[in-house]
Amino acid sequence: MRLVRFRDPSGDVRRGEWTGEPDAEIRAFPGGGRRFRVTPEFHAAADVEILPPCEPSKIVCVGLNYADHADEQGKAVPDRPLLFLKPPNTVASHRETVELPAGKERLDFEAELGVVIGERCRDVDAAEAAGFVAGYTCVNDLSNRDDQAVESNWVRGKAFDAAAPIGPVVASADAVPEDAAVRCHVNGELRQDSGRDRFIFTVPELVAEITRYVTLEAGDVISTGTPAGVGPLSDGDTVEVTVEGVGTLRNDVIIP
Amino acid sequence: MRLVRFRDPSGDVRRGEWTGEPDAEIRAFPGGGRRFRVTPEFHAAADVEILPPCEPSKIVCVGLNYADHADEQGKAVPDRPLLFLKPPNTVASHRETVELPAGKERLDFEAELGVVIGERCRDVDAAEAAGFVAGYTCVNDLSNRDDQAVESNWVRGKAFDAAAPIGPVVASADAVPEDAAVRCHVNGELRQDSGRDRFIFTVPELVAEITRYVTLEAGDVISTGTPAGVGPLSDGDTVEVTVEGVGTLRNDVIIP
Repeated sequence: MRLVRFRDPSGDVRRGEWTGEPDAEIRAFPGGGRRFRVTPEFHAAADVEILPPCEPSKIVCVGLNYADHADEQGKAVPDRPLLFLKPPNTVASHRETVELPAGKERLDFEAELGVVIGERCRDVDAAEAAGFVAGYTCVNDLSNRDDQAVESNWVRGKAFDAAAPIGPVVASADAVPEDAAVRCHVNGELRQDSGRDRFIFTVPELVAEITRYVTLEAGDVISTGTPAGVGPLSDGDTVEVTVEGVGTLRNDVIIP
Repeated sequence: MRLVRFRDPSGDVRRGEWTGEPDAEIRAFPGGGRRFRVTPEFHAAADVEILPPCEPSKIVCVGLNYADHADEQGKAVPDRPLLFLKPPNTVASHRETVELPAGKERLDFEAELGVVIGERCRDVDAAEAAGFVAGYTCVNDLSNRDDQAVESNWVRGKAFDAAAPIGPVVASADAVPEDAAVRCHVNGELRQDSGRDRFIFTVPELVAEITRYVTLEAGDVISTGTPAGVGPLSDGDTVEVTVEGVGTLRNDVIIP
């Protein structure tokens, strides 16, 4: 099952099922919106506004969770997850044109697998973590390297508006293989190509470590880090983050 | 005017006016809750549950905003505000007993003046910033120094559950002097004693700098940094943060 949130042509915010493919119809669930609906409806994906598939109160991001990316950044593999935060102002949608901070030398893409939390949780054992995961999505951890390089906490560097496109859907765990590919294309060219089997810290380990300190809410996202291959974006680029089993998150970027 | 949010004895979440003094009555505004009320009601403060006076989607915190605190931390005065984030899981209420992370050597209090945003804003000029400020509150920027010292982004160090008690009220700007005192008492003993006139970056400068990158929402809080005198807490301590014109935020702490 792949769950989508969208605004239908009447303006109602709805949920439905969608493969994420541009030509595939969205099957909207009954009941939602201002009208009461008893049967599913079908919408052409082109006719609706795709919304973020969940509404996180916070995105907890993981740095250096692939050994190859730690290498390219010249950093040692950490002995526990390096964590940072993206607040709700960072959330952007599939197909949204994203305006990045002006006047910076280097703004990067980072393809990541996002873990969507299904239920409020705290102090979760790794062995129980799967029960708190609703599913998976794609995240583009957009990064302003100019400021990231000179600030301790990455607020200007990672928490600027629209710094976290997510989507297009939340895929249930059974749809996403254990070794799911995580890829990034820029203007159609493959730039990152790795997979979940190369994580340093697994999803259950991340849920356990984060919830030792932080309560996660339904709809919160853990963004699991990016593989090697990160690189700069230019005005007008199209970035696509693909997670096998989820689909492809596409955003055009504007750099003023 | 000092605005309070509280849960009344019937269980309804209400807003009202309160001086913050334990013996002063709360004047609940008409209209709120499950019953329709046309006239104000009065409640003894002891009979209600005080709630956080606003519901931030994020708290944007400022480090090293008093020269004396920069000195005691052995840090240079920054040339622009040092920013970090506290997500919604950190919010705690006046009078709440706060459980701090277990197994740490040093957990500190930090008294701060909090700026409560009144309206969504982005790219605000410092000269216009006052128009986006709803008022002021007290913040206790509780800090886990063990982890803060060894992590780049202060998630375990500053974003643990209940790491940001706020309240007891939001005071309107006219109630809070330009040189408002910012104080902390632990178990009745004065530990921090400074004032807003000693800020390195003023409130309008902070609003302008943050909103260059980050949209602030109504109810979001900017916590403006702590003065000299920070120190460790012990299990069972009572911490009081006082901002002149706002009142006193009181929390007992448990360290398991």
